Amino acid sequence: MNYCSQCGNAVNLEIPPQDNKPRHVCSHCGAIHYQNPKPVVGCLPELDGRLLLCRRAIEPRYGLWTLPAGFMETGETVQAGAARETLEESGATVEVNHLYAMFSLPHVSQIYLLFRSRVIAQDTLPGNESLEIGFFNEKDLPWSNLAFPVIRETLWLYWRDYAHGAFNLHTGNIIRTSGQLRRYRVHLYS
Amino acid sequence: MNYCSQCGNAVNLEIPPQDNKPRHVCSHCGAIHYQNPKPVVGCLPELDGRLLLCRRAIEPRYGLWTLPAGFMETGETVQAGAARETLEESGATVEVNHLYAMFSLPHVSQIYLLFRSRVIAQDTLPGNESLEIGFFNEKDLPWSNLAFPVIRETLWLYWRDYAHGAFNLHTGNIIRTSGQLRRYRVHLYS
Repeated sequence: MNYCSQCGNAVNLEIPPQDNKPRHVCSHCGAIHYQNPKPVVGCLPELDGRLLLCRRAIEPRYGLWTLPAGFMETGETVQAGAARETLEESGATVEVNHLYAMFSLPHVSQIYLLFRSRVIAQDTLPGNESLEIGFFNEKDLPWSNLAFPVIRETLWLYWRDYAHGAFNLHTGNIIRTSGQLRRYRVHLYS
Repeated sequence: MNYCSQCGNAVNLEIPPQDNKPRHVCSHCGAIHYQNPKPVVGCLPELDGRLLLCRRAIEPRYGLWTLPAGFMETGETVQAGAARETLEESGATVEVNHLYAMFSLPHVSQIYLLFRSRVIAQDTLPGNESLEIGFFNEKDLPWSNLAFPVIRETLWLYWRDYAHGAFNLHTGNIIRTSGQLRRYRVHLYS
């Protein structure tokens, strides 16, 4: 951020009075531009014991598989956003059920909120975000071609819970470790 | 938003290619400025069967009571943010436990994420965000002087669950109804 989105003048990084973190503050109108993590909302769409995954047609991770999920929009609810992203990316209309996974990704300032859901209608694949979709059980799932660590962890938890016949909310953090290699550490809360 | 935060030129509201919602797009550098809901994170701090509330020293709702909660910061986890806000607003160090309530407030594009937590240390009241704090059981709680509908609903659910001895995650929406009066409708998912 270089310029004030309200008046167009230059911003400076400084700690405002009664604050303890540097913010972008306008040199002219004094507006303080806070930045906040972004919610990513999506679904684990279930149909006959299988889960719907989408193969990405966009960067990052073009060509890899993921659960339907994306950035929540202003003015919508979490559950409505999860259903919207699922329809946009997969053509599936879902009934959104319980929250299944909440993960913080502090290295990119994102929160993932993923819901169990039931596929109630399936259109032909719409839009331009996915190359194809597929319904997978645990064995068929493209485990070595998944797009994101948070998706791999969520799917792993899901099939473990599926085997036990009991699904609970899981919360945790995906931490990018230091170093040049893109590696991640998963921390689950009990 | 009037100006591009990257290059300082004017932005226009338009629907970008392959999108379906108007965004602020820079007339000069083409940057698309997405807006997303903001996560608000906080705690229900428990001590000996009572809950810690804070009386607000800042607007909005100066002088009214609330659970310690505030905007999540970039680079932190949900749970760390909930503990930080609790310490900043009340002086209480907490052990953050299970997620207890997730509410969407689409009229202000916020998501509330509130955790059960246990008070493990209590400093003198720090900072400038609270006039005072108090520990309340259900009967003593200042029900008619609470700051926000989402807090009232969460506290009501909490004491109902407390009476039953079983706490589950609650998710729902706080919807501002149309009309000049500031009224809200609560929708709970089962």
